[in-house]
Amino acid sequence: MFKNKLARLIQEKKSLLCIGLDADIDRIPKFLLKEKDPLLIFNRDIVQATKDIAVAYKPNIAFYESLGYSGWQLLERTLELIPSDCLTIADAKRGDIGNTSRKYAEIFFQKYKFDAITVSPYMGFDSILSFLEFEDRGVFVLCLTSNKGSSNFQYLNIDSEPLYLKVAHRVLQWDLEYGNCGLVVGATHPEDLGSIRDVAMGLPFLIPGIGAQGGNLQMAVQYGTDKQGNCALISASRSIIYASTEADFATVARESAQNLNITINRIRKQKINDLI
Amino acid sequence: MFKNKLARLIQEKKSLLCIGLDADIDRIPKFLLKEKDPLLIFNRDIVQATKDIAVAYKPNIAFYESLGYSGWQLLERTLELIPSDCLTIADAKRGDIGNTSRKYAEIFFQKYKFDAITVSPYMGFDSILSFLEFEDRGVFVLCLTSNKGSSNFQYLNIDSEPLYLKVAHRVLQWDLEYGNCGLVVGATHPEDLGSIRDVAMGLPFLIPGIGAQGGNLQMAVQYGTDKQGNCALISASRSIIYASTEADFATVARESAQNLNITINRIRKQKINDLI
Repeated sequence: MFKNKLARLIQEKKSLLCIGLDADIDRIPKFLLKEKDPLLIFNRDIVQATKDIAVAYKPNIAFYESLGYSGWQLLERTLELIPSDCLTIADAKRGDIGNTSRKYAEIFFQKYKFDAITVSPYMGFDSILSFLEFEDRGVFVLCLTSNKGSSNFQYLNIDSEPLYLKVAHRVLQWDLEYGNCGLVVGATHPEDLGSIRDVAMGLPFLIPGIGAQGGNLQMAVQYGTDKQGNCALISASRSIIYASTEADFATVARESAQNLNITINRIRKQKINDLI
Repeated sequence: MFKNKLARLIQEKKSLLCIGLDADIDRIPKFLLKEKDPLLIFNRDIVQATKDIAVAYKPNIAFYESLGYSGWQLLERTLELIPSDCLTIADAKRGDIGNTSRKYAEIFFQKYKFDAITVSPYMGFDSILSFLEFEDRGVFVLCLTSNKGSSNFQYLNIDSEPLYLKVAHRVLQWDLEYGNCGLVVGATHPEDLGSIRDVAMGLPFLIPGIGAQGGNLQMAVQYGTDKQGNCALISASRSIIYASTEADFATVARESAQNLNITINRIRKQKINDLI
């Protein structure tokens, strides 16, 4: 079960950290460009330097898809480098009608063997079912996203409750049946994270938006975790993997990951202490 | 401009037909499996047999992505076979934060040179902006989808108006600025198509759901087209491309496309006549 594995790794590694592997040829250290596979070397060194701190790695599929065939090869080879005590999350945000959704589920869960995926809720249950049916994998449904455009639809009120809470309620129902749901909740709305956590106490949250997107880490951890300060992944990409673009990039990425994790754990401890 | 090209082709070809190229190795005629590239041969023969009737071809990206590297090669080679008097629509339903969305826009518009794409609205304006900025391409935003799960969120009422109409209003605003928006509106909700057309009179509709999904063609054409019976693409996939799985598959696909188009045009004529 994805949830159990997540809980176990959070405990073992004393970490909520998820590192986004947004491999971008324009942003990796220039000296790597002379290598045969610069992006693979980059991913390899980042994973190597952070694998004891990270609970999960989250390749954003767009960055791989944008490279054509070689991108899928890069993804495949990157996944091989991630040790089994780290979860892999396909940040794909897919969602389509049933027979198409099945194809996407096969790609990410069967072919690439991801532990989890992000999906879009707009098309509803049957667009997500094919993913839910892989009961040992996690399905993180977009709930309240970290970008500005989240205000366009996610905040619209339905019976005095915003759409994102309707999504949370609905996903909770699906989780009762399938047991493998989670929610994507952006750290850029920390004041609203708490209301989602109140609705979906037992669901794992994937929380992007700290780091480059400027979300509030203190409040994200405070309100995004469950009562024990668990059940959440705090995701950072650019602020870790591109922390340095010099020869020391992997060391600096490790330091950034470590510092972030120390800060997260301090907030978690504070939260638990405040409750006692 | 995408809209002008669409309008011109609809007029020239006397057709609203969009053919979905959902290339599936489990469904193509068995005798093709002895070929080196059975899916490419299949797509080639379907396009060859229907290109004078189809205004657009819509490869569903999941079917290509599911094949790994070879799928992207298949997509590339399929696109090369589609003549310039047919539009190409990437049925991708993407949507992500800005820097990721930009990557997806580059893949589909720059690398593969699609004329249009389908995107998901849930994450709002900035998740779609990168696509809108390609002003000569079309951006079809999911509005009311053809699957059952559309009832989960799309029909939720906001100020006594369903979410899908809020999406239509919002996309209309974006279109005022960028001029290249369209809506995806499923034929399985023909009674609601009219209300969307009332809101978004000038936007092209991409209407899937007839054929295998059982939508009502009569009402889809009646309510989904504009006052002149134009400005819409009626999309069918499986009911055309898999109409026969024997050696005659291309001929039968052509007949199916032709029959469908004749029926569509009869309904369009009836609609215009009723207005006079």
